[in-house]
Amino acid sequence: MRPSGRNLSDMRPISIETGVMRHAEGSCLIRCGGTEVLCSASIEDKAPSFLKGSGLGWVTAEYGMLPRATNTRNRREAAVGKQSGRTQEIQRLIGRSLRAGVDRRALGERQIVVDCDVLQADGGTRCASITGGWVALRLAVNKLMAAGIVTSDPIVEHVAAVSCGIYAGQPLLDLDYAEDSEAGTDGNFVMTGSARLIEVQMSAEGATFSRAEMGSLMDLADRGIAELVAAQKAALG
Amino acid sequence: MRPSGRNLSDMRPISIETGVMRHAEGSCLIRCGGTEVLCSASIEDKAPSFLKGSGLGWVTAEYGMLPRATNTRNRREAAVGKQSGRTQEIQRLIGRSLRAGVDRRALGERQIVVDCDVLQADGGTRCASITGGWVALRLAVNKLMAAGIVTSDPIVEHVAAVSCGIYAGQPLLDLDYAEDSEAGTDGNFVMTGSARLIEVQMSAEGATFSRAEMGSLMDLADRGIAELVAAQKAALG
Amino acid sequence: MRPSGRNLSDMRPISIETGVMRHAEGSCLIRCGGTEVLCSASIEDKAPSFLKGSGLGWVTAEYGMLPRATNTRNRREAAVGKQSGRTQEIQRLIGRSLRAGVDRRALGERQIVVDCDVLQADGGTRCASITGGWVALRLAVNKLMAAGIVTSDPIVEHVAAVSCGIYAGQPLLDLDYAEDSEAGTDGNFVMTGSARLIEVQMSAEGATFSRAEMGSLMDLADRGIAELVAAQKAALG
Amino acid sequence: MRPSGRNLSDMRPISIETGVMRHAEGSCLIRCGGTEVLCSASIEDKAPSFLKGSGLGWVTAEYGMLPRATNTRNRREAAVGKQSGRTQEIQRLIGRSLRAGVDRRALGERQIVVDCDVLQADGGTRCASITGGWVALRLAVNKLMAAGIVTSDPIVEHVAAVSCGIYAGQPLLDLDYAEDSEAGTDGNFVMTGSARLIEVQMSAEGATFSRAEMGSLMDLADRGIAELVAAQKAALG
Amino acid sequence: MRPSGRNLSDMRPISIETGVMRHAEGSCLIRCGGTEVLCSASIEDKAPSFLKGSGLGWVTAEYGMLPRATNTRNRREAAVGKQSGRTQEIQRLIGRSLRAGVDRRALGERQIVVDCDVLQADGGTRCASITGGWVALRLAVNKLMAAGIVTSDPIVEHVAAVSCGIYAGQPLLDLDYAEDSEAGTDGNFVMTGSARLIEVQMSAEGATFSRAEMGSLMDLADRGIAELVAAQKAALG
Amino acid sequence: MRPSGRNLSDMRPISIETGVMRHAEGSCLIRCGGTEVLCSASIEDKAPSFLKGSGLGWVTAEYGMLPRATNTRNRREAAVGKQSGRTQEIQRLIGRSLRAGVDRRALGERQIVVDCDVLQADGGTRCASITGGWVALRLAVNKLMAAGIVTSDPIVEHVAAVSCGIYAGQPLLDLDYAEDSEAGTDGNFVMTGSARLIEVQMSAEGATFSRAEMGSLMDLADRGIAELVAAQKAALG
Repeated sequence: MRPSGRNLSDMRPISIETGVMRHAEGSCLIRCGGTEVLCSASIEDKAPSFLKGSGLGWVTAEYGMLPRATNTRNRREAAVGKQSGRTQEIQRLIGRSLRAGVDRRALGERQIVVDCDVLQADGGTRCASITGGWVALRLAVNKLMAAGIVTSDPIVEHVAAVSCGIYAGQPLLDLDYAEDSEAGTDGNFVMTGSARLIEVQMSAEGATFSRAEMGSLMDLADRGIAELVAAQKAALG
Repeated sequence: MRPSGRNLSDMRPISIETGVMRHAEGSCLIRCGGTEVLCSASIEDKAPSFLKGSGLGWVTAEYGMLPRATNTRNRREAAVGKQSGRTQEIQRLIGRSLRAGVDRRALGERQIVVDCDVLQADGGTRCASITGGWVALRLAVNKLMAAGIVTSDPIVEHVAAVSCGIYAGQPLLDLDYAEDSEAGTDGNFVMTGSARLIEVQMSAEGATFSRAEMGSLMDLADRGIAELVAAQKAALG
Repeated sequence: MRPSGRNLSDMRPISIETGVMRHAEGSCLIRCGGTEVLCSASIEDKAPSFLKGSGLGWVTAEYGMLPRATNTRNRREAAVGKQSGRTQEIQRLIGRSLRAGVDRRALGERQIVVDCDVLQADGGTRCASITGGWVALRLAVNKLMAAGIVTSDPIVEHVAAVSCGIYAGQPLLDLDYAEDSEAGTDGNFVMTGSARLIEVQMSAEGATFSRAEMGSLMDLADRGIAELVAAQKAALG
Repeated sequence: MRPSGRNLSDMRPISIETGVMRHAEGSCLIRCGGTEVLCSASIEDKAPSFLKGSGLGWVTAEYGMLPRATNTRNRREAAVGKQSGRTQEIQRLIGRSLRAGVDRRALGERQIVVDCDVLQADGGTRCASITGGWVALRLAVNKLMAAGIVTSDPIVEHVAAVSCGIYAGQPLLDLDYAEDSEAGTDGNFVMTGSARLIEVQMSAEGATFSRAEMGSLMDLADRGIAELVAAQKAALG
Repeated sequence: MRPSGRNLSDMRPISIETGVMRHAEGSCLIRCGGTEVLCSASIEDKAPSFLKGSGLGWVTAEYGMLPRATNTRNRREAAVGKQSGRTQEIQRLIGRSLRAGVDRRALGERQIVVDCDVLQADGGTRCASITGGWVALRLAVNKLMAAGIVTSDPIVEHVAAVSCGIYAGQPLLDLDYAEDSEAGTDGNFVMTGSARLIEVQMSAEGATFSRAEMGSLMDLADRGIAELVAAQKAALG
Repeated sequence: MRPSGRNLSDMRPISIETGVMRHAEGSCLIRCGGTEVLCSASIEDKAPSFLKGSGLGWVTAEYGMLPRATNTRNRREAAVGKQSGRTQEIQRLIGRSLRAGVDRRALGERQIVVDCDVLQADGGTRCASITGGWVALRLAVNKLMAAGIVTSDPIVEHVAAVSCGIYAGQPLLDLDYAEDSEAGTDGNFVMTGSARLIEVQMSAEGATFSRAEMGSLMDLADRGIAELVAAQKAALG
């Protein structure tokens, strides 16, 4: 039995509310259990300078967490004066993941910045950021297409992410904070709507795992991603 | 007629929803028209070192704004590597204002950190932060008292804040972003529930104002503060 | 009786010595009692980039304090690696205040940077910086006009500033450091030579004040500003 | 045929020279083809403060690259004033990987810092850092044991890492820089001497991959790790 | 003939006014021609931590320059967020030079911080800082001795500094800014009151110099230092 | 007898190995006793902006030290977030020294960046950096000339540097770390292949020295530089 009382392959309830930020070109509030992330997508007319003249667009992401999103207050990164290594790692992952589902030539020389700000944290914030960030991105691109600025759809695939881990020798899907703290091995799978892999990050702290266990985790991930993609579709109506 | 179509002395609709952050000792989401600020209060067992042995507590505040809270995306302060002068000015104001309503001896040698994070901005974010921050602070102190950690109530007064300004020669209450941009003179009044002044910040950019105009603005502020204090009371039930 | 032994409405002796920095286009050393601030105005041929093509000029200010201007040595901000919130708040105030007395169109697309460096501090350094900074600015603009670079005088008004506060229930004018430390309420009035208000910043730390007290402080400020403007005129000959 | 002309499952020549830094408790220079990393392990008598009183030790890592280790000169991070997100990601990976092979209780309350500095870069620098860093760590621990400071061997397992990728539809082992730039999918496997997984990081930039491909990459990784562990053993004599 | 019209071995007029900063334990304003430096010495009861328990004291220095001390305005280091390499080099030199004249055991475990702030710059600011800084240090130490806190005089020697250079093949003493800009070779000699050397820094930019020229410069330095030490004595009465 | 057992005027063994970094236009590994510095020269097509249109080139240097180059581990400057004052002082010295041997007009409007990274430190790292940096520079310039990009040789002179000091009243050549720690007076001489002086930096910490001693040190320096220049010639073949 897992700490949360869920079955091994059970996801937490997912909710995705769109259009929650009035200024952003695309936005949503995604809730996965007790984790809540506010995602927005901002369109910028210029691509980063390294793409000048290439005809290619760019999608990038930034990640933050409110100081009291967690059980004990974290120091505000703006006050500390720098983003932690963890924050940078996460926002690089979100950006790479979203780009994997985008035809950058169809997007044209512009940039979309996806901001993912964690309002409440209970494990899986980076996965929720990817899944919700993709919805914000989809909505912003819809706006570009509705305005005729972009004609061929640059969004090629759904992109979603889910965490898995091994707890007491059992593979678990969608770990909450308590489970994540206990799991010797855990990580994230970023996948497309057609069940192809974009990013696999599996990591053991003070433990190791076998190829067979890796296989079980991938089975769980397939299942979780399908549920998340369904939630994305439902939210977009 | 003012840009928003409101009467000169009309406030925007106010809503204060409490208990929105599960981890914080006190929290609320305050909405003043299109402005939304998430406020939390975190209790820390230790006072800052300059108070060591004094028997006095401390209340401080931090302020932030999501990059896309505004019409065009602002750079994330954590990524820039420092808080702007504006941010620091605002968070110092919030802290001073809240402390004015607190008996620091009754609080004892501990610190309460009030975080005010702007989710959506449409003018008056620092005022909403003070008004909502006070509610979060009140709730956190309630918890200290319920637990018997603090016995005499350290909260002496309601504290709330409202903006006023002069637009086309007319004094306005509670400016939204469009009005604030147009007003030659504007500023903020922080007041107690008993209509005493805590902080007055009135500033003219490319203009000046008279003592008579200052008087009209104070009349408006009295009115606005009364409404805000009523909303605080309603939210706390 | 106030700590300094002065009458409630007495200013400290004021002295403004012009032309003290050989390289600056305008400069003065202002002394208000034990407070000494070295002010310089530097003309730059270019306005800040946000004004490009607008035909408007800009006036900005920077503020600093020598480490041993005060009773105990402060850490040097250049060594710490950033300006404190207080420093930024003050230099933003000085800049806004000086701009209120300037016709930015008459100035044309150039920038004047006013540096205010406190050599000795005994309360009221931001007010002395504004009053002295205006003299430096006036002298620099005189140079632009003498050279025919600017033809219509961009300086529309004298600008000066004075502090007021409430000590032991009495309103005081021009607080020195000892008085400022004791006063529950204190703040600054920035005004023009024609007694109009530019900026009012009144703040109570651990106290509150009434509208009637606010009125008394404004009476004192009127009186102080008149004296400061007279000193500016005398210094400019 | 792969760009380097090697067979798909061929590693580049590996050389590990130990004892190259006279001051370090353990050190080696590892060469994997054109990639050269200088690794040192420094023993510190104190564990980080979060472990105080726990009886547990810590292993951490720092990573750097000489400005001209690469084809075009990179800016020196010390001059820029911060470590890039990439650098932080890599050094966190190295630290986690090495800790997976360490019994932290046997190590006792002390810290070993492993520095990995890339003298020449031709792909796979993070993998070489892990493989070489482990050798430096092993030597430093040997010294602790020889001195009787540590009695039960805290090193539980060999730890080594290798990169894999998919190029033109083919799975490749141990990518050099040219191959890495061309591969749509690539990543790293960190494994123990007994072929268990510690960390899997597989990432597709502008592409996706299947579970079957993931399997082929893991086959290659098994093979590469065996070769690297043999090289570690040979170097340690 | 040198640019300034002075004879090759002529110093500029020197003036040292003591007691100019009311709060500092020792202070002076030193003027060497058009160069003006405000020097203060602040006594701190604690020595730096690396001296804890050693019985030895420390003397250190910080150096700054007002933005408009020079012909064109320099950016304020506090605003830039760091001290330049030049500033750090200078303040390290001042500290080392002053320590050379101090018996650190007689000083006891305390620190004296000498701040040198350039109000006006016309060449030779680091030399003026050393010469004036020594006077401030002497005055602060006098205060320690008068109070009986220190009983044996920790000041062993006068310390003063002068610049020399080679201009158009001729050795010059005490270069002003114009001369310094033209000289291919220039540098500084820090010496004691008994004509012994503390520090020699001679540097050729785009040129070289001979041992014979080095000799001539040392002859000039002897002469200049004697004059500076006489000025120090006169100032101290 | 000196700590190292060498004769007073004995240099440590010197070795200079060229071409050690495959990507750099010029490189060498210089060893002076136990000190090892990896030097590279990188050609950049653009000169710094302050030289735009001048027809002049630039040579600059950066210096770093691996954390464990020394007996106890130093904090990594990239992690600390800034270069120390010592590092900046050294890299400015290396740059000035190398420029003294270069005809910047012959070099043309381009920049050569010389990186000096200390792999092992045993005293004299800045001198080894200059001597080795010159070899890397020479090799890079050779490449420019071989390619016909530069036609007249911009390298006018050999540049090398050696340390000297006074230990127990005796002048010593080429101090190792132990000697340097004990010497009351020490410093560096940068000279040309024709025995002219470029830079003299002699410094006494807690001591002073005489002109006669300065003369002895210069005699030693002459001798050491001759040996270093011979080693440079031998390395270049």
